[in-house]
Amino acid sequence: MERTLKVLDGKWTTLIVRELLSGPKRFGELRTALGSPSAKTLTDRLRALEHQRILTRTVHAEVPPRVVYRLTEQGESLSEVLYAMLRWGEEHPPAEG
Amino acid sequence: MERTLKVLDGKWTTLIVRELLSGPKRFGELRTALGSPSAKTLTDRLRALEHQRILTRTVHAEVPPRVVYRLTEQGESLSEVLYAMLRWGEEHPPAEG
Repeated sequence: MERTLKVLDGKWTTLIVRELLSGPKRFGELRTALGSPSAKTLTDRLRALEHQRILTRTVHAEVPPRVVYRLTEQGESLSEVLYAMLRWGEEHPPAEG
Repeated sequence: MERTLKVLDGKWTTLIVRELLSGPKRFGELRTALGSPSAKTLTDRLRALEHQRILTRTVHAEVPPRVVYRLTEQGESLSEVLYAMLRWGEEHPPAEG
């Protein structure tokens, strides 16, 4: 449990994993998909997830360089947790008032 | 998803729900079970969960008053999310080094 809480540390981290479940993404694609968090916030969270071995960062030597983020096998396995969160959220909308 | 992230906002909140899944608890019992967070931290998180209708706070008119926290039906239903987190954490211990 503590490990899961450490990995899914905050809203952005969880949303990044959710975005990458549909496939590898570039930095700019992630930023747009997430509603434009600051570049620093996104960079920090991506580094933390890379450090936790949830995703990999691959730099393709092109001009300009193409940087792609991709879930590891361990990262993909978080889908079970995220789907449980998604289901609960759909079944329990916020209370009125 | 956003609602789940709002409800399970941070480590303490998630750990409080986990503790209450085994039954209603008093403030002091929760504090001990959670490894003694500050009274202010615990009070803040309990209020946020009460506001989100995840738990109820009942004051029993005794001397001294007995205050009991108990999950609502909605709160109990978070067990699915927490068990998914628990399973993932057990299956994916932190990397060495």
